[in-house]
Amino acid sequence: MHRYRSHTCAALRKSDVGSTVRLSGWVHRVRDHGGLLFIDLRDHYGITQVVADPDSPAFKAAETVRGEWVVRIDGLVKARMDDTVNKGMPTGEIELYAQEIEVLSAAKELPLPVFGEPDYPEDVRLKYRFLDLRRDTLHKNIVKRTQIISSMRRHMGEVGFTEYTTPILTASSPEGARDFLVPSRIHPGSFYALPQAPQQYKQLLMVAGFDRYFQIAPCFRDEDPRADRLPGEFYQLDLEMSFVEQEDVWTTMEPVIRDIFVEFADGKPVTEKFPRIPYDTAIRKYGSDKPDLRNPIEMQAVTEHFAGSGFKVFANMIASNPKVEVWAIPAKTGGSRAFCDRMNAWAQSQGQPGLGYIFWRKEGEKLEGAGPLAKNIGEERTDAIRTQLGLDDGDACFFVAGDPAKFYKFAGEARTRAGEELNLVDRDRFEFCWIVDFPFYEWLEDEKKIDFAHNPFSMPQGGLEALNSEDPLSLKAYQYDMVCNGFEIASGSIRNQLPEVMVKAFELTGKSQQEVEEQFGGLYRAFQYGAPPHGGMAFGIDRVVMLLVGAKNLREISIFPMNQQAVDLLMGAPSEATPAQLRELALRPIPQKKD
Amino acid sequence: MHRYRSHTCAALRKSDVGSTVRLSGWVHRVRDHGGLLFIDLRDHYGITQVVADPDSPAFKAAETVRGEWVVRIDGLVKARMDDTVNKGMPTGEIELYAQEIEVLSAAKELPLPVFGEPDYPEDVRLKYRFLDLRRDTLHKNIVKRTQIISSMRRHMGEVGFTEYTTPILTASSPEGARDFLVPSRIHPGSFYALPQAPQQYKQLLMVAGFDRYFQIAPCFRDEDPRADRLPGEFYQLDLEMSFVEQEDVWTTMEPVIRDIFVEFADGKPVTEKFPRIPYDTAIRKYGSDKPDLRNPIEMQAVTEHFAGSGFKVFANMIASNPKVEVWAIPAKTGGSRAFCDRMNAWAQSQGQPGLGYIFWRKEGEKLEGAGPLAKNIGEERTDAIRTQLGLDDGDACFFVAGDPAKFYKFAGEARTRAGEELNLVDRDRFEFCWIVDFPFYEWLEDEKKIDFAHNPFSMPQGGLEALNSEDPLSLKAYQYDMVCNGFEIASGSIRNQLPEVMVKAFELTGKSQQEVEEQFGGLYRAFQYGAPPHGGMAFGIDRVVMLLVGAKNLREISIFPMNQQAVDLLMGAPSEATPAQLRELALRPIPQKKD
Repeated sequence: MHRYRSHTCAALRKSDVGSTVRLSGWVHRVRDHGGLLFIDLRDHYGITQVVADPDSPAFKAAETVRGEWVVRIDGLVKARMDDTVNKGMPTGEIELYAQEIEVLSAAKELPLPVFGEPDYPEDVRLKYRFLDLRRDTLHKNIVKRTQIISSMRRHMGEVGFTEYTTPILTASSPEGARDFLVPSRIHPGSFYALPQAPQQYKQLLMVAGFDRYFQIAPCFRDEDPRADRLPGEFYQLDLEMSFVEQEDVWTTMEPVIRDIFVEFADGKPVTEKFPRIPYDTAIRKYGSDKPDLRNPIEMQAVTEHFAGSGFKVFANMIASNPKVEVWAIPAKTGGSRAFCDRMNAWAQSQGQPGLGYIFWRKEGEKLEGAGPLAKNIGEERTDAIRTQLGLDDGDACFFVAGDPAKFYKFAGEARTRAGEELNLVDRDRFEFCWIVDFPFYEWLEDEKKIDFAHNPFSMPQGGLEALNSEDPLSLKAYQYDMVCNGFEIASGSIRNQLPEVMVKAFELTGKSQQEVEEQFGGLYRAFQYGAPPHGGMAFGIDRVVMLLVGAKNLREISIFPMNQQAVDLLMGAPSEATPAQLRELALRPIPQKKD
Repeated sequence: MHRYRSHTCAALRKSDVGSTVRLSGWVHRVRDHGGLLFIDLRDHYGITQVVADPDSPAFKAAETVRGEWVVRIDGLVKARMDDTVNKGMPTGEIELYAQEIEVLSAAKELPLPVFGEPDYPEDVRLKYRFLDLRRDTLHKNIVKRTQIISSMRRHMGEVGFTEYTTPILTASSPEGARDFLVPSRIHPGSFYALPQAPQQYKQLLMVAGFDRYFQIAPCFRDEDPRADRLPGEFYQLDLEMSFVEQEDVWTTMEPVIRDIFVEFADGKPVTEKFPRIPYDTAIRKYGSDKPDLRNPIEMQAVTEHFAGSGFKVFANMIASNPKVEVWAIPAKTGGSRAFCDRMNAWAQSQGQPGLGYIFWRKEGEKLEGAGPLAKNIGEERTDAIRTQLGLDDGDACFFVAGDPAKFYKFAGEARTRAGEELNLVDRDRFEFCWIVDFPFYEWLEDEKKIDFAHNPFSMPQGGLEALNSEDPLSLKAYQYDMVCNGFEIASGSIRNQLPEVMVKAFELTGKSQQEVEEQFGGLYRAFQYGAPPHGGMAFGIDRVVMLLVGAKNLREISIFPMNQQAVDLLMGAPSEATPAQLRELALRPIPQKKD
């Protein structure tokens, strides 16, 4: 017999009754039922119930073992009595009558219980991550994470992509977030950088002729602690294709992602055909470029109904500034003064002056708009608003007025809040959409200049001609996101592979050709030597996994995460370098004032 | 029709004749055959011949295109004349009659030709890697690399392993090579380290209960330039298993690797059952712990035949020191004075006093040993040596004498040289073996102390008892390598998961328990809380790929390598950090004297 096991702890069935077998695993739980000892033995695969009575030669050993000890147990497979069969576990029809127990590794008193799912301080859990990972939910989440990633690889292969690995020690890239630097010992005073994303390399692969690239790519950003991103590293499903338009990227990736979600969604519905929503429309309808489409509320402009109306606050704003609009947030079933007042109070808590509303109720046979706004604008306008929005008895509507560029985010938050408070959001589904036609540039108010709104490597719609002739802030990019349940899970674009278009695009942000050549040398040089049209996107793997396992915290789906202060409590990183290391790297730390 | 292509450049067949199609790709070559223009159009998938005659509306455009321009070509698929069919290429039965050519991206004059396989300076090739990668051999090598890695993943999945990703920003580990450090901005003066290997993490995964781990793992070692290792990063197929003995690791991985080699060996024979050779035997037979078994030469000790013989140099050495042995390197078909003298001259060029030899030839009916040694030791001893080694007319034998610990490497090199010079080595095959039972400790002559011979995390054979009672230098480890054609392609061990054995093992190298706790805190702590017996190994992916594609240089199988001075010429790394970056990291570079 094998030194440690003839079966895993998930393998034994009724058909094994009568066999002598050997299991190894962790003592999950010991129960003493009046002289009869039950040990739940656990391994990666499952749990088997072991029993020892005082007649068993293993009884003495069974009395000594404690939770999380690693033991080998030889024994006889017995059928359980009908009334003790556990249908909830695959090995629930049998138990193992212990004949010999060998302790392979004892455990000290545990700093963290493994049995059950108790709430425990984060720092203890991270320091003893190897124990935390034994807990059922975390173990299952991690296994599911590996299965999702494996499925991504399989699907990408099936649609003709090849996984290429790009360098991790590379050059500092001036776009985007802060780089992690790696001092060079051979070239003192010089530094490598860890890649924020393999963006330039994947584009170089296209220029090199590799056609369809993907990678489960480690990415590194030295950002300040954020709730929605672990410090240090994260993974993307990164991909790029040559000789494509954006439509090709969409039709390639939409089925891949839909199939992966269907595979792991545990039966929850997944959008069959992802709607494509232009950025401007998303902002107007949902107040967000990552709308949660499980929320059925769609906003509409109702400016005309307030222009020249008796509600002077809005009417005066509209009259004095052509940019001003009034947006309506329809709230079906929200037609009570209590709810409307609650929304109003919430808006004030968000620093807003308030949230105007109308709600409708039947007064006898008549449907009547209630609330101060309705009174001010009169019956006819109130009913025109109701008709435009398709509202009825028991519904409400909230109004936000001003320059949409300034209020759309708040309007989106009000839409979200109304949907959630009124339980209009169906949580148990995955609602996808594409957000397309992002603006190419944005205005930086602080610096009084335009800059790239997203990816500087994207192709502007209209190309060089549009850059030369149109208002830069009106330009759209071939730039798109995939959004699921209100989270941006992917972003991508068709790239700007034409050197003269690249130079012009940067010029409008104030970068000279020389700066482009210096800062994007590899890519800029490559585009001089025959670059195919290409585009792609990148999916945030952590976010996909969180959605699919229903986790709220990144640490629930990461194997060995750092804490929010970017400290690896398990391994003790970061730590001081030795004087010899610093000497070799020709670096001197500047002493810090203590806080 | 699609904006860029209806088919790839490898897709068109005789059955497509008569279709109007659209291709996009790079102009591989343009030939002008007296007014008739031929363009070989290339993409990732293959090459299609395009033809334009002066009647074609695309002729003018065809005249302007140059090598490596990216173009779209619409045209009519025509059958080639029988005498122009090219059976060597999949599209060789057709050609595309060009009707429209659009230049998608022109190319400047090339710093490096793509057509053909010219020898070009390494630095130009690395700076313009995107062009070098378009060359047929490099393109094919890289694609094969991705296929090999993909096959590794598939095989590992099939034998029950799961791929877990371990952190890249982690703690400095005091064993082994030099770490790359990453300064922490949030904790000034502290550093992360990039992992030399995921050794501790994979063991922690076992302690966490994950059972069968693998990873295509990036590893980082800040080593001085070496011919056989690229600076910076490299990849391992890393794996670990719980509840196993070394036999389990061998029987799991041997078929995986054999199948992968069979899959990519292009029909070359691959060892069916890998012999298991104890380290001591490998040293004695092959003078190496990574023997090339394609070389049939096996050395033998022939000390007794020289003890007390008339060859006084050897006889006196043997008499004066019990450690002295004489090893014979039999060289079938090497029985000529010219060859033996050449070997002797080579030995002298290696700093040896010479290489004694005997060769055998027929004198009439009689088989006679020739050379000075044969004369000195006489006919009987000469013939005893010949018989022991199974040599015959036309064969030779070389002799090395002294302390085997000091000469075995040279003896191994002589074996290699004799085998290669005599063409005894069958190059077109993959000969595998396991080298097992490595010494646990070695003697460091410089420091006058013992240290771990290989992995400090390995389990010593005999466990705690052996550590307590036996000569440390006689101990073997549960430590093994896989060797192919003279290259160590993998190394592994059963791990020491028992804290008290770990402490004792380190104690013998002079490390206190406290130092172990400090330096291997994560792992040492984990072993206190129920650690399963476990073991594994790691395969060098670069080496496997080099063997399978027949590459001699790592840059022939790497996508974006640095040069030997650890410079990324393509992206321009390493480079100076900005003052703002250094300030944020609280680092000051120490100015270096110029060379």
